[in-house]
Amino acid sequence: MHALKVTRAEDFPEWYQAVVREADLAELSPTRGCMIIKPWGMGIWERLQGELDRRIKESGHENYYFPLLIPLSFFAKEAEHVEGFAKEMAVVTHHRLKSIDGGLQPDPEAELAEPLIIRPTSETIIGDAFARWIKSYRDLPLKLNQWANIVRWEMRTRMFLRTAEFLWQEGHTAHADEKDAMDETMLALEIYRGVAEDFLAMPVIAGEKPENERFPGAERTYSIEAMMQDGKALQAGTSHYLGTHFAEAQNIRYQNKDGGMSLAHTTSWGVSTRLIGGVIMTHGDDDGLRTPPAVAPRQIVIVPMLRGKPEDAQISEYCAALAAELGAAKAFGAPLRAFVDAKDARPADKRWDWVRRGAPLICEIGPRDAAGGQVSYLVRTALRDGEKIKTNALARADFIAQAPSVLEHMQGAMFAEAKARMQGAIRGDFKSFDDLVAQYGADEDGGFKGWARVGWARPSGAALEEVGERLKALKLTIRNAPLAQPASLGKCIFTGAPAVEEILIARAY
Amino acid sequence: MHALKVTRAEDFPEWYQAVVREADLAELSPTRGCMIIKPWGMGIWERLQGELDRRIKESGHENYYFPLLIPLSFFAKEAEHVEGFAKEMAVVTHHRLKSIDGGLQPDPEAELAEPLIIRPTSETIIGDAFARWIKSYRDLPLKLNQWANIVRWEMRTRMFLRTAEFLWQEGHTAHADEKDAMDETMLALEIYRGVAEDFLAMPVIAGEKPENERFPGAERTYSIEAMMQDGKALQAGTSHYLGTHFAEAQNIRYQNKDGGMSLAHTTSWGVSTRLIGGVIMTHGDDDGLRTPPAVAPRQIVIVPMLRGKPEDAQISEYCAALAAELGAAKAFGAPLRAFVDAKDARPADKRWDWVRRGAPLICEIGPRDAAGGQVSYLVRTALRDGEKIKTNALARADFIAQAPSVLEHMQGAMFAEAKARMQGAIRGDFKSFDDLVAQYGADEDGGFKGWARVGWARPSGAALEEVGERLKALKLTIRNAPLAQPASLGKCIFTGAPAVEEILIARAY
Repeated sequence: MHALKVTRAEDFPEWYQAVVREADLAELSPTRGCMIIKPWGMGIWERLQGELDRRIKESGHENYYFPLLIPLSFFAKEAEHVEGFAKEMAVVTHHRLKSIDGGLQPDPEAELAEPLIIRPTSETIIGDAFARWIKSYRDLPLKLNQWANIVRWEMRTRMFLRTAEFLWQEGHTAHADEKDAMDETMLALEIYRGVAEDFLAMPVIAGEKPENERFPGAERTYSIEAMMQDGKALQAGTSHYLGTHFAEAQNIRYQNKDGGMSLAHTTSWGVSTRLIGGVIMTHGDDDGLRTPPAVAPRQIVIVPMLRGKPEDAQISEYCAALAAELGAAKAFGAPLRAFVDAKDARPADKRWDWVRRGAPLICEIGPRDAAGGQVSYLVRTALRDGEKIKTNALARADFIAQAPSVLEHMQGAMFAEAKARMQGAIRGDFKSFDDLVAQYGADEDGGFKGWARVGWARPSGAALEEVGERLKALKLTIRNAPLAQPASLGKCIFTGAPAVEEILIARAY
Repeated sequence: MHALKVTRAEDFPEWYQAVVREADLAELSPTRGCMIIKPWGMGIWERLQGELDRRIKESGHENYYFPLLIPLSFFAKEAEHVEGFAKEMAVVTHHRLKSIDGGLQPDPEAELAEPLIIRPTSETIIGDAFARWIKSYRDLPLKLNQWANIVRWEMRTRMFLRTAEFLWQEGHTAHADEKDAMDETMLALEIYRGVAEDFLAMPVIAGEKPENERFPGAERTYSIEAMMQDGKALQAGTSHYLGTHFAEAQNIRYQNKDGGMSLAHTTSWGVSTRLIGGVIMTHGDDDGLRTPPAVAPRQIVIVPMLRGKPEDAQISEYCAALAAELGAAKAFGAPLRAFVDAKDARPADKRWDWVRRGAPLICEIGPRDAAGGQVSYLVRTALRDGEKIKTNALARADFIAQAPSVLEHMQGAMFAEAKARMQGAIRGDFKSFDDLVAQYGADEDGGFKGWARVGWARPSGAALEEVGERLKALKLTIRNAPLAQPASLGKCIFTGAPAVEEILIARAY
């Protein structure tokens, strides 16, 4: 028996929804395709946001805030860009409601002369500002970031992974030349790799997307790809070198050092609340989420085992003192986040609530603990001994002294476990496309569940489309061409021609 | 000569726009009525957000995130509420664009069955969740907060003070009874007072709004009111006791301790980026903004006086070391925020940029400073001696040792200065309404510029409307009935009847 009604092995998608719900991360809202993010999910996002914001600022970017609503005409300027987003735009057409025939309706007299689009991404409105702000090479590089909500009308939504509205960060920068812009593109990618691996304990592979998977309007798109426990890939962050496409469309020009006018080279890059989906599918188990300690809103939860008896007061006092002492210690360079759950509920229910949420350490303090100066606790990543729940106990001083290293060790062990799983599920021994067919099979329920790392000749245009179709029949996609490439390459798995690089192929979210 | 082209005395509204622009706080965007918040403005908001978030969480609230888009039917449930907001709602009617006759247009086939409203405030969608989540008295109180963007279609916009989109925080809570909900309403108001006064150095008067100024759907509305340098009032934050109005409209009921069903009592409260407008008009002078040190994104800006000479390297090194040493010291309980402005621009231009932005301390480090171990600096709140710029100098170690107390003293002095100005401009000596007419005059350019504190009999309904009309002729409004009331009251200034409380009357933003 586990804390969730469905296990990963039984039904991975159902298990995912169960974790989102039972760990109190989020729930579906009455607005179609949108979610309500709840405190544990929001706490994870806030911690991640704080860490990423720090790294983005330290690398020379400043935060701005641009409007939610973008005039429709702005999108018409870059043809590929609008083509990529037109089908999923939420369109504002009126600015007032009116009571008509007893019912509230958009007031026909308050129709906008030009419709406004809720931002699906902000290249167009930020590019417009770049064109006004950038006059001379002295104004470059211009490196900005914003934290914002985004709307893309999705027909098939899944919480955190694909929702009509989501929260994200979008970096936008302008540079004098390609080299500087490419350095920035790779810098952003490296920031994402670092946060995913160091902070979320989620191993990723960074690489370049094939041309048919580029961001609409980009010259080159890079991604970090993480492996979920079902072997599928999750694109966890992207960084785009936009070349001069947006600069041409929006007239972002500067006076260069020779006195002439040059087009700026721009980049954009983003990660979103989708990362929380990645954390769930990387670290969750059949008892719920296991939250990496660095990002856990509460690292140590203390449950007083109150029983409506006189010794309750002593237990509560003991718990409060324990939390205060823990809060004076540090892990990951910050004060420990310890919390006493004093809610009016059964202690056993509280235990399971925190197990499902994945609080790293859960202390259960009964009268004997309080009287004996002891701490009984569960370690979320070593919750069971076989089927049985494993309870640990330490003298109070020892628990406080050891808690920081236990949490830091747990973080490292979670990363190592996920990394070993990923590495063990990437196979490079495919000799031919037939081999892929044989190993994966057309059915997602049978066959190989991991990723294929294969050589290819990097086809373009129609030839690439054909490759995509062949993979699609197996429900496979090309994830990226990893930055780390081998010294010598074999043959292209699709054509038999000499390979020019290796790519990762996988089923994906 | 001052750093701005227009002074407060010449044209206060023009001066305000000049500060917003010249201090690089924000600019108008191509989206009608919306602004682009720039790094100095965003930095102030982020600091304020961090402080307020801390206080909100410490008082037992948790952060959630609810959808941006709210189904139209949700608004129809509370009649007064929709009446209050229907005229300024941005309405989403389509979810796709299509190329029609060569132009992009909302796709007629992608019209939504039910229009969606961009949240003008979130009582309706949060109340819907309350109705689902609250079952028993054990679920109460439920205290949540969210940070979000809001859209209210305003016809006359002014940056920070009134924009179509703005950023805010909105608290929403549900309670078992009126007393608990009223305690919460007053707790939120006190949090706002504390942040405004302690953190923004902006004195306010907290009190209850008259019935015709209540939030649409509220039982009682409270505000904090700040006095701007032109003597006008700025409503800087509001807290609402909503009674059972929303609970009735949305069926928020709980099983009480006796086993019966009761309606919950709810509250809501919010402050927004409008507060930045308040900071500008409280602390700005004819040289630009003076940013209170507690909220300044950069408290000490170091400008290296480089002249393209060999000693430049020594200066840069000296500045970097100075910044690092300052960063190791603390003010307001946090590390000092020191910054070296290494931008490729003339040192004199940088000086004035930081004067206009209102960095509290501006160091100008030339070759003699670097060689002699000295720091030359400007104090933003004591920038001039008469017309002349006043430069100070200290030995480096002394500057570092004194900087924290200089900043903390500056914060206190800014609050004291603003408080004395406010108190000096509130007059309680009006004997009759005729006296108000005589002192204020109908013209905003002449007459008394401050606030009137007068007794009234708290009329209701039509009688209150009539009072409002009489005041409106003088461009005056009732701000609030201060929480602090005198022991004995005189007569109602409007009717001559015995007064039941004192109110503040002012011109307002």
